Amino acid sequence: MTLAAADDAFAADLAAQLPADTLRATEPRYLEEPRGRWTGTSRHLALPRTAEEVATILRACNAAQVGVIPYGGGTGLVGGQIAPQGMPEPLILSLERMNAIRGVFTEENVLIAEAGVILADVQTAAADVDRLFPLSLASEGSARIGGLLGTNAGGVNVLRYGNTRDLVLGLEAVLPDGQIWHGLKRLRKDNTGYDLRHLLIGAEGTLGVITAAALKLSPIPAGRGTALMVVESPTAALKLLSMARSQMGEGVSAFELMSRMGLDFLAEKVPEVRQPFAERPEWMVLIDVGLARGLDPSEALETLFGEALEAGLVSDGLIAQSEAQADDFWQVRERTPEANRMIGAVSSHDISVPLSAIPDFIAKGYEVIGALGDFRINCFGHMGDGNLHYNIFSAPGRNRADHDNQRDEIKRTLHDLCHEMGGSVSAEHGIGRLKVGDLERYGDPAKLSAMRAIKAALDPSGIMNPGAVLRTV
Amino acid sequence: MTLAAADDAFAADLAAQLPADTLRATEPRYLEEPRGRWTGTSRHLALPRTAEEVATILRACNAAQVGVIPYGGGTGLVGGQIAPQGMPEPLILSLERMNAIRGVFTEENVLIAEAGVILADVQTAAADVDRLFPLSLASEGSARIGGLLGTNAGGVNVLRYGNTRDLVLGLEAVLPDGQIWHGLKRLRKDNTGYDLRHLLIGAEGTLGVITAAALKLSPIPAGRGTALMVVESPTAALKLLSMARSQMGEGVSAFELMSRMGLDFLAEKVPEVRQPFAERPEWMVLIDVGLARGLDPSEALETLFGEALEAGLVSDGLIAQSEAQADDFWQVRERTPEANRMIGAVSSHDISVPLSAIPDFIAKGYEVIGALGDFRINCFGHMGDGNLHYNIFSAPGRNRADHDNQRDEIKRTLHDLCHEMGGSVSAEHGIGRLKVGDLERYGDPAKLSAMRAIKAALDPSGIMNPGAVLRTV
Repeated sequence: MTLAAADDAFAADLAAQLPADTLRATEPRYLEEPRGRWTGTSRHLALPRTAEEVATILRACNAAQVGVIPYGGGTGLVGGQIAPQGMPEPLILSLERMNAIRGVFTEENVLIAEAGVILADVQTAAADVDRLFPLSLASEGSARIGGLLGTNAGGVNVLRYGNTRDLVLGLEAVLPDGQIWHGLKRLRKDNTGYDLRHLLIGAEGTLGVITAAALKLSPIPAGRGTALMVVESPTAALKLLSMARSQMGEGVSAFELMSRMGLDFLAEKVPEVRQPFAERPEWMVLIDVGLARGLDPSEALETLFGEALEAGLVSDGLIAQSEAQADDFWQVRERTPEANRMIGAVSSHDISVPLSAIPDFIAKGYEVIGALGDFRINCFGHMGDGNLHYNIFSAPGRNRADHDNQRDEIKRTLHDLCHEMGGSVSAEHGIGRLKVGDLERYGDPAKLSAMRAIKAALDPSGIMNPGAVLRTV
Repeated sequence: MTLAAADDAFAADLAAQLPADTLRATEPRYLEEPRGRWTGTSRHLALPRTAEEVATILRACNAAQVGVIPYGGGTGLVGGQIAPQGMPEPLILSLERMNAIRGVFTEENVLIAEAGVILADVQTAAADVDRLFPLSLASEGSARIGGLLGTNAGGVNVLRYGNTRDLVLGLEAVLPDGQIWHGLKRLRKDNTGYDLRHLLIGAEGTLGVITAAALKLSPIPAGRGTALMVVESPTAALKLLSMARSQMGEGVSAFELMSRMGLDFLAEKVPEVRQPFAERPEWMVLIDVGLARGLDPSEALETLFGEALEAGLVSDGLIAQSEAQADDFWQVRERTPEANRMIGAVSSHDISVPLSAIPDFIAKGYEVIGALGDFRINCFGHMGDGNLHYNIFSAPGRNRADHDNQRDEIKRTLHDLCHEMGGSVSAEHGIGRLKVGDLERYGDPAKLSAMRAIKAALDPSGIMNPGAVLRTV
């Protein structure tokens, strides 16, 4: 299948079918991505305001065999939002003007947001009616709902509330042929046919364009508590997690692992972040709990610490005495990626393994990467979900460019290890364009063949985000 | 597409490719369903023990263009498990011999069960390691995991723990062409391509055969409490639910609505069930809570009752003082379907509407059904999920057969109302063969067209559960 370019003639034709100012010249910010690995080439950008306009655009693209890149907040880390070089220039379809919150149904714990709404605005709208929209991640100030759904974003509260897909009741979406699926149901139970919702969520815009979603809200837990605890090892951290969950059940909202390397990087590059312990520990965990009425979170965390101390799992700990202190603790976790970027990783990995395999994975990871040379490793992340960010840096005094020729081998080595242990080489970031080869290497052949059949069935011209997730054929 | 019959020659050929005794003559129990609406005609039954044997069977069926009916516990209520009359005789594929629990990963809260394991056995295996598998429904003593997944079963704990699909981390399945998808990952985060898991779950065996699943377990809440409360109206019940959730958050596990009609039916047909109140109330709710360590469920329910009494939402209430009493309360709810069957419904409905629309739906339902004649209505069910079982009976002294000619009109009237209110005409039972026409009438056209494209892509010969969910073309 050969696609045509979104050239000036195509854009002029399409513009004539849409309200004035819907088609525009692309600005540079649509052609860049956070890590600077790709630069796009599209000249034309569509900014629809309604699902009907999206449908008009997809019909025109289908008729002219022009590729379309759905664009949310541009925060993706795997290049899914960037028109690849070397293919016919696609049209960029940004949902940013579809940014209405269409309704809030407080008693139902439901909020309907259009694809262009920024995550932080959904969180605020939920808080305004005394509810919680639990999806939370570093880019929440700029990531948009459509992109978060397209990539099934993860973040820090998955342990308790699930991934993005678990927070969605219904969708409105435009299918590749321009049909609009009016699926914005606010139902907790609806067994009428195949679950198209979950097929579009996580498909990274390759099967259609999500234009709005009915999102689940949650009650805000009555009391919040935050603690940092120094653990002897990842194994001890795992046991601490288990102890915490047996004491507090669903009350454990986040359980993040951090290593001394991350604290060292912060001290060097982001010194304004307060170091929590006088001596930087080898391993520590950040625990966030949200408990029901009648329970005291500080007390619950003290009980946990006491029992963990007795069991030899922890050696030191801090329980936040105020919201400000809790925020300080979270700064340590949330500004780690910034410090990492300033150091400059040779290679970054977003992997998951079965929970019980984490300690073994970390140990073997040090081994196999150590065998390739002298590297520093900052391994941290959402331990409660089995999801680690495993970033590899050059030794002090050297820099990432010194290892350009090793990057592929490093990636391969770590991903092979992860795959052997039953893990995933893309836990929460998706495939995008970065990991198409990884999916081919590690993906189950039957699943891949089903994916290709579904793609061909729903998007026979291959116009939707061409080259993302699946290689164009 | 015309299918061929699973005749003796086909069965003999297939038997030769499988271990002895895998192909058998069908027994009558595979040709009946709980409500006696359909009778199947298949003569041949396959009882594979492994995914590889299932693959052999599907390859043979594909080669010979023979239809296959995947069969679990046979408890489905919409005829999905029954070979339809008037089509070429299909092969029945029962998963009952794939009944191993392949592994329990206590620290990960994961259990891997084959498709033939009975739900109650999964519950027991979870309890044995001090965990909860929260899926719970009336047929749990005979329903099997494969069928529960195929239909995305609901039940009484959806409010807290979600539908069956929300309890699944990974699947092993055989695709229609005989490829085995090895997707039994034990990962909480895995964004590597389209979510084939959610596509197969709820597809009612029309897109492949699920052979095993990695299931999520939960911590067992530290304390359980159960109460019955008399509410003034469905509106009051809705407010009580909201109050309960703001007091106890996720602690509310079940919230079931029952009406006087149901209590009258129980008194008449199942008198051994203890009536909880001296005078049968118009409306009451059954509340089950599971609270964390440090909270007293009885106390929490008393607080709730006190505040609800003050707010004028409830007029009477009982809080279970023992497990035995809690079981007594649940008997009232769980034996209601039995009483219904003994009375004999003219028409039964498994519908859902947005939570806030429930009172309005109930009121309008009485109106539109009342306009069709003199009927008794037993409306009860999973109010917390917006899911009601809305069953319509003849007036005393008449019987269901008197209304045979009205059944279609009754169904249509109630389903039209439900659809207008943004509801679903199959909340938890699925489409099967009973509701194929409903799906065509009420389903979104874009979704239906996507479903047909997906079916054609994954099962081009149309061998998988032909006639279920989608009409054969």
